[in-house]
Amino acid sequence: MKGDPPLRLHVFDLNCWAIRYLSKRRQERMRLIGDMLHREDFDLVLLQEVWSEQDYSDLKVKLGGCYPFSHYFRSGVIGSGLCVFSRFPILDTLLYQYSLNGYPYMLQHGDWFCGKSVGLVIIKISGIIFNIYVTHLHAEYCREKDAYLPHRLVQAWELAQFIRHTSKAADVVLLGGDLNMHPEDVGIRLLRGWTGLQDAFVEATHFEGCEDGCTLVPNNCFTDKSEMLPFPLGIRIDYILYKAISSYMVKCELLKTTTGAAPGMDVPFSDHEAVMATLHIQRQEQAAGTTFGTAELTLADVVTEARTEVAVGLRVAQRQRYSSGRMAMLALLLLLLQAAATLGALVGLDAGQPFPKLSFCLLAFLAIGVLLLSTGLHLFHTMEVKMLRGTEEQMQMVLRALQECP
Amino acid sequence: MKGDPPLRLHVFDLNCWAIRYLSKRRQERMRLIGDMLHREDFDLVLLQEVWSEQDYSDLKVKLGGCYPFSHYFRSGVIGSGLCVFSRFPILDTLLYQYSLNGYPYMLQHGDWFCGKSVGLVIIKISGIIFNIYVTHLHAEYCREKDAYLPHRLVQAWELAQFIRHTSKAADVVLLGGDLNMHPEDVGIRLLRGWTGLQDAFVEATHFEGCEDGCTLVPNNCFTDKSEMLPFPLGIRIDYILYKAISSYMVKCELLKTTTGAAPGMDVPFSDHEAVMATLHIQRQEQAAGTTFGTAELTLADVVTEARTEVAVGLRVAQRQRYSSGRMAMLALLLLLLQAAATLGALVGLDAGQPFPKLSFCLLAFLAIGVLLLSTGLHLFHTMEVKMLRGTEEQMQMVLRALQECP
Repeated sequence: MKGDPPLRLHVFDLNCWAIRYLSKRRQERMRLIGDMLHREDFDLVLLQEVWSEQDYSDLKVKLGGCYPFSHYFRSGVIGSGLCVFSRFPILDTLLYQYSLNGYPYMLQHGDWFCGKSVGLVIIKISGIIFNIYVTHLHAEYCREKDAYLPHRLVQAWELAQFIRHTSKAADVVLLGGDLNMHPEDVGIRLLRGWTGLQDAFVEATHFEGCEDGCTLVPNNCFTDKSEMLPFPLGIRIDYILYKAISSYMVKCELLKTTTGAAPGMDVPFSDHEAVMATLHIQRQEQAAGTTFGTAELTLADVVTEARTEVAVGLRVAQRQRYSSGRMAMLALLLLLLQAAATLGALVGLDAGQPFPKLSFCLLAFLAIGVLLLSTGLHLFHTMEVKMLRGTEEQMQMVLRALQECP
Repeated sequence: MKGDPPLRLHVFDLNCWAIRYLSKRRQERMRLIGDMLHREDFDLVLLQEVWSEQDYSDLKVKLGGCYPFSHYFRSGVIGSGLCVFSRFPILDTLLYQYSLNGYPYMLQHGDWFCGKSVGLVIIKISGIIFNIYVTHLHAEYCREKDAYLPHRLVQAWELAQFIRHTSKAADVVLLGGDLNMHPEDVGIRLLRGWTGLQDAFVEATHFEGCEDGCTLVPNNCFTDKSEMLPFPLGIRIDYILYKAISSYMVKCELLKTTTGAAPGMDVPFSDHEAVMATLHIQRQEQAAGTTFGTAELTLADVVTEARTEVAVGLRVAQRQRYSSGRMAMLALLLLLLQAAATLGALVGLDAGQPFPKLSFCLLAFLAIGVLLLSTGLHLFHTMEVKMLRGTEEQMQMVLRALQECP
């Protein structure tokens, strides 16, 4: 009923940057994060980049008293890095692993080895069903020439589709995570447009924290200052997004970010700033109608823009598939030639000096190595082409549906 | 309203066995399948093992007049093999790729290379929302010692979870596909118990076709007769399952299977028999209540049984992870020894005869090969362990929830 007292929900979101052996002062920072979460009274904690299950277990032990319910999402070789702590019982969970996530040979970036995913937990508070999503999309390593944009767009699209399809019985949808996209980027406009999620920073009545709500700031001692040069205030890539379905209304009363070092400490919690939202959830008598017309037009523009980028990625992937296929064929040809030469030598057909055995062997091993590697690459790019084409077609289908809308 | 005329839906499901270069008389059979679908008046066609996109495109061209809407699900290196043809507009689609699907080194089985998935298409007929799922689970190659059982159980679990989470706004849920499980197998009991889906064969008022509804029968000229020896009638592994949510009721009026060779032909459509269901969908005034009590108890038993099997798989995967890790360490040690010997020879420390160059090189290449291979295997089994453990924990969570049920 409209007269029901509003529900107030405190949500915490942080990319913890907890990579074993690589992240600076990891154990100390994880301890600080645990202490702070124990001290503060959040209802829901959404964490990313908790790559080590041991770190999660330590947090679980420490926070068992105040956040009795938690879930760690397992996926990929290294893991998804995603986990959730909650004051309220977790009724159900589901994980969706993105179909594209960078390249296995980009070892210096390493995203491919993580099972980048979106995790869903369902909780019920005072009869209100919450679908809580936590995710972490592919990083952006070079904004000027972003080779991963098509993959990140596929991820944003799959995230939006997953939310749309799984949230139909939810009263409130909440998404927290490191989306690795600036607020004006096409991926975030696509995600928000296609799901109807609202940005807590934009909607917040009060805001406290880094200017413009930035979550990667030059002030933080762990951020790479050279990467921050074009953005003197920093960038905003960590979000809390929400929407109410059915007959509920959500308002963001207060949004906060941390601002570098933790209070009284010389070390920040992470290289990212945490985002904290206080949300008001109130039942309303009539469900708000969807705004048609201009909204659909804007969405069609965004989907078209995203589709163009995915198509660019598709052409690159097709070229790479072709090159790797050609390389595999050349290596196979070389091997066949060597086999023929060996056979010739065996039956005494060669007239001149036989090949030096060592170089001959080395060449054969090189050819086998190139053949295996380029075949692997060819298979990988074949899969990439499939997924990019599939996404492009899905977007095309949505565009047709939007155009047919009255 | 209760007085609305019932909707009659004709559904066709077939594993087409259309592997390019491998499946016998593929093109001829695909043509026959297309002709038959064009002739008959199905509303919905769910196909599996259409591995070649060209075969799908040919079908699409042929069936464009009678099934104007279709979708091909792309995933993995080879594809998902799944596609849907429909007389009614497809409103939306989603694909979920299973996290485990056999082993990359089991080349003779090859399941790993297919992106085994479940595809969802949403259609609306006379105001009734249908969530249509099509899937194909990992094959069973040896029933006595089924090494893939834990993977198939993870798939059955993920399938059930995906259906539960995505079908909350549907009026009718329909699943068709080759589940590679006998009707009494734990996986199918888990899937049916956890989703509430009903088996069209069991529920059908009338049945025509192979005895016991078998879909892999010795009569079919393409089936392996030696594999069929313990099952003289054949086995039933292809299903049409359904349920009504909200205030609808579904009844299976007629279930049919093909029986070997297509009418008037010497060749069957596939090595599997097709399953065809005529469903009656009727609105009812009051939604049927869920039956609690004994149903929950049986479900708890099934989840416990499935969890035990997953735990067995987990132990095997842990052993394989350990073995491959140890092999990688040994290969690394050999390489280090060789490097030390080379270094020693270079600075003139070796007293006796230097190693024969060729064997030394061959040994080094062998060590590198073993190192790469066993590292790859170690990473793969690490991922396998993660997914098996994740599923086991999810099942544990469900068991706790079931036990807490009143």
